Amino acid sequence: MYYRTHALNELSKKNIGEKVTLSGWINTRRDHGGVIFIDLRDRTGMTQIVFNPEYNAEVHSKAHGLRSEYVLKVQGEVKARDEININPNLKTGEVEVFINELEILNKSEVLPFEIDDNTTVNENIRLKYRYLDMRKPKMYNNLLKRSKMINSMRNFFMEEDFLEVDTPVLTKSTPEGARDFLVPSRMNEGKFYALPQSPQLFKQILMVGGIERYYQIAKCFRDEDLRADRQPEFTQVDVELSFVTENEIMDMMEKLSKKIAKDVVDVDIDYKFEKLDYNIAMEKYGSDKPDTRFGLELVDLTDIAKECDFKVFRTVAQKGGLVKGINAKAGSGKLSRKIIDDLTKFVSIYGAKGLAWIKINEDGSYASVITKFFSEEQVEQLVKRMNGEPGDILFFVADKPKVVYDSLGNLRLQLGEKLDLINKDEYKFLWVVDFPLLEWSEEEKRYKAQHHPFTAIKSEDMDLMETAPEKIRTVSYDLVLNGNEVGGGSLRIHQEETQEKVFKLLGLEKEEAEEKFGFFLNAFKYGAPPHGGIAFGLDRFLMVLLKEQSIREVIPFPKTQKGQCLMTEAPSGVEFTQLRELNLKSTLKKN
Amino acid sequence: MYYRTHALNELSKKNIGEKVTLSGWINTRRDHGGVIFIDLRDRTGMTQIVFNPEYNAEVHSKAHGLRSEYVLKVQGEVKARDEININPNLKTGEVEVFINELEILNKSEVLPFEIDDNTTVNENIRLKYRYLDMRKPKMYNNLLKRSKMINSMRNFFMEEDFLEVDTPVLTKSTPEGARDFLVPSRMNEGKFYALPQSPQLFKQILMVGGIERYYQIAKCFRDEDLRADRQPEFTQVDVELSFVTENEIMDMMEKLSKKIAKDVVDVDIDYKFEKLDYNIAMEKYGSDKPDTRFGLELVDLTDIAKECDFKVFRTVAQKGGLVKGINAKAGSGKLSRKIIDDLTKFVSIYGAKGLAWIKINEDGSYASVITKFFSEEQVEQLVKRMNGEPGDILFFVADKPKVVYDSLGNLRLQLGEKLDLINKDEYKFLWVVDFPLLEWSEEEKRYKAQHHPFTAIKSEDMDLMETAPEKIRTVSYDLVLNGNEVGGGSLRIHQEETQEKVFKLLGLEKEEAEEKFGFFLNAFKYGAPPHGGIAFGLDRFLMVLLKEQSIREVIPFPKTQKGQCLMTEAPSGVEFTQLRELNLKSTLKKN
Repeated sequence: MYYRTHALNELSKKNIGEKVTLSGWINTRRDHGGVIFIDLRDRTGMTQIVFNPEYNAEVHSKAHGLRSEYVLKVQGEVKARDEININPNLKTGEVEVFINELEILNKSEVLPFEIDDNTTVNENIRLKYRYLDMRKPKMYNNLLKRSKMINSMRNFFMEEDFLEVDTPVLTKSTPEGARDFLVPSRMNEGKFYALPQSPQLFKQILMVGGIERYYQIAKCFRDEDLRADRQPEFTQVDVELSFVTENEIMDMMEKLSKKIAKDVVDVDIDYKFEKLDYNIAMEKYGSDKPDTRFGLELVDLTDIAKECDFKVFRTVAQKGGLVKGINAKAGSGKLSRKIIDDLTKFVSIYGAKGLAWIKINEDGSYASVITKFFSEEQVEQLVKRMNGEPGDILFFVADKPKVVYDSLGNLRLQLGEKLDLINKDEYKFLWVVDFPLLEWSEEEKRYKAQHHPFTAIKSEDMDLMETAPEKIRTVSYDLVLNGNEVGGGSLRIHQEETQEKVFKLLGLEKEEAEEKFGFFLNAFKYGAPPHGGIAFGLDRFLMVLLKEQSIREVIPFPKTQKGQCLMTEAPSGVEFTQLRELNLKSTLKKN
Repeated sequence: MYYRTHALNELSKKNIGEKVTLSGWINTRRDHGGVIFIDLRDRTGMTQIVFNPEYNAEVHSKAHGLRSEYVLKVQGEVKARDEININPNLKTGEVEVFINELEILNKSEVLPFEIDDNTTVNENIRLKYRYLDMRKPKMYNNLLKRSKMINSMRNFFMEEDFLEVDTPVLTKSTPEGARDFLVPSRMNEGKFYALPQSPQLFKQILMVGGIERYYQIAKCFRDEDLRADRQPEFTQVDVELSFVTENEIMDMMEKLSKKIAKDVVDVDIDYKFEKLDYNIAMEKYGSDKPDTRFGLELVDLTDIAKECDFKVFRTVAQKGGLVKGINAKAGSGKLSRKIIDDLTKFVSIYGAKGLAWIKINEDGSYASVITKFFSEEQVEQLVKRMNGEPGDILFFVADKPKVVYDSLGNLRLQLGEKLDLINKDEYKFLWVVDFPLLEWSEEEKRYKAQHHPFTAIKSEDMDLMETAPEKIRTVSYDLVLNGNEVGGGSLRIHQEETQEKVFKLLGLEKEEAEEKFGFFLNAFKYGAPPHGGIAFGLDRFLMVLLKEQSIREVIPFPKTQKGQCLMTEAPSGVEFTQLRELNLKSTLKKN
């Protein structure tokens, strides 16, 4: 190789005496007693190079002009460092290279921030200069891990005889419920492509096509008002199989998940993933993606509340609401009145009108503003049900089920953090299974498909179609890691008649279904096999594995919450003529 | 596994006596003496299953209703076929499975065409029912090979320490010269994303970012008026490296190409790829992507023409044009007058005003309409220069260089086919290198960048910047396979000053360059390393490997020349409200 004989993490005592060629960036420069020391950096690491006037005066004098982030090609001789100068923190720290040839490949202006993991830089500045941000070892490592994760998954799928099939980006609306990004077609006047929200229809079509095992690392697009941790384009690892049961799919994906954990963060997962019913997950954790690295399970108190003297609890319980509690075990010392007030505000985000609590003092007495509304016996009943002991604080929410689950589920996570119950080194995978087919839409006052309308129904629940559709469970499964949904899937409906029934249940008229999914429904007339699949959110999965707080840390070129790329300044204005070619006109007033 | 114990290509004599479970589609059904024989098909192959009333009367009677493409799950016993019934064309042809359990997983309507490689179906029908088309073994195999090719490349890049980095799809205009597809942004009023024509800017940015070795299988988008074999979205295998020379890149990509040929079509390429100068490629083959599986090289006759009596030739030669010929060796028997007339029409497509020819009869005399315009000596001179012998036909074109190259280059390919000179089993790779920086734009009457404006200039040609810019060669290389450009790349300019000079040469004002590539040029101020790369056209590369005639045969869901997906009917109309949310209005009259 012309530019280098060694990468900058390679040299060690074994190379002493060798002539080497190195290339890279100047990380730091120190002048010491007339000698110039430079840490030369490439993506693998750093090596100290030395410009010593006694070793080579000409090159030494040339080195005076060198500045941070200049790009160099150098040749020299590997020498042992003096014992005292050995740097144990550097892989190449036992040696240095005395330089006798120097080529400045490029210069650099002063950078807007240091290439250094320990300096905190405003995220917008980092995004604007993403190309400098990724010179930092941590960011480089995140991109490396992303590449490794994708490769780990690919190798798995190839070993399991999957085909990688790429589905179109310029396509038609998909039924994921979010807004589509539209792409006007110039050649087809007045018509638009949509960017896919997921390859859902295509992956099922591929099963009809007999592909049997499909995967794809697919870009998906949703024009949503961006929540903190969403991106308008994201990466989905998309999987579909024919002639499989749900357990076969889950077993295979469990194997995949263990391989990923090993390949990406070198962790051995040696337990079988628990399968938790959706209903039980909600009851115990108030969440369909519970973090089970710690306890603090929700306790149902509705039956006690129904009979109690406290009107707030009793009314809720009698009118079909829930009263549930969490025992913040041994929390009384850590949870000050101030913190409890903050937690009360916190649960109000989820609609809770209050957060009742009972603190159990060390002497067994109670500190609480609600105990006075109960008989002594009733308080004892509550405390006993919740295993209350001295030092505990018991929290209660009484409300509609959704509010109770949301507020206590999130309170539980807060308490887990505040009571320091979470082992941050643990990777806790589990399956949440059997999601309900329908969910009540408060907005539209009707039941809607919780997932997409192609999810298969559990055969034992088919009879509920007529009688109690809200109780119907689907053959579905979400993969949860440390309280994050990192994947989700289901078996699909493969028979026309069942599909028609489900559409009807969802209030989707035959004509509307035809118009939306006509080609798809048509395909299912020609011998669709039983099939099912799963999709992983690559960005989120990787984020959790790397213990990052935002998906932007694991995406090479992420966008801001407003969907802007600060580096390229996309989106941007276009010429009037470009719109004219598309038969479009802006309705905005000119500035 | 619930649905199958064996794939349908697996059973052989070794399995005789075993109880097996199989699933798949009914490929064909035959009734013979009261027994029903079905070829059950999955993606791997077929197995004959037998419903025999004497073996299981109940299941046999159930099997009467079975039709083509029904999906079955069956259980039964593997038996040897009688000697006479062995099917040597089927991998499982020595056995059959007697069925004692049948589950009809799905029914099928009658298909619009047979699942059979030997039936020719109109391409539009195939595209509309792509999901049925891909049940055919050939189409399935093409998709399988596509998956294998991508995987082969990925493994190569991972072994060579590349990072797979995904670059945005919602981005900003790229400088590839074609029209962008635009995506209106709802959240950023009046602004638009562009879909990438290639990741060119991003891949260079990644080099500035210190990634050093990048690859990506990227979807690229060009809103061009589609030529026969283009797609609005296509797949590019995108590669970029830092600290490398052009020869290091070419050597690595040669190694990759050989691996692909082995992995995809099981061919050993044992030769070193020739490196052909662009200028020589044009002179010898009239093409920058010559098919060198056969000879028929172009012969330059301009010097002879300059002095000759034939005014047409002489004038062209004296005015800076070219006179060149091809000797269609031993072609006189195969090329009738009719064919020659067709070839004359053919070259007129490329602007040739005529196609002169001399047929050398077996007795050494000439049949030609042009020989009368030459002296006998001049004819001999031409014939000698072209190694003319009895049985040959010599063809001539005199015109501007571009017309001569285009018409004779394409004539050469036609003659190669018609004279049956091409070994269709051969895979002939070569590099065409050192493309000129500039090409004359007849439309704009000025020089334009032949490639993109970031291509590095050969160091020995730097001096030509002032004196003869049209002669400047770039450090560039195209990978050619059997006359198709399957990849192309270059070293890039990494120093700001050089980039500015080249922009100037291209007539790109500093302000315009800033506006177009501002963020990109800015990045180069912070220590850009020397770098270069290549991009492969995955679809075309695979098409050539599989000897297909169209890239649509190797793309899972291709679009028509009008950019339509016949299966999903994309693009399609959208609701007025969707446009309103984007602050857009159609300028089309309502129908």
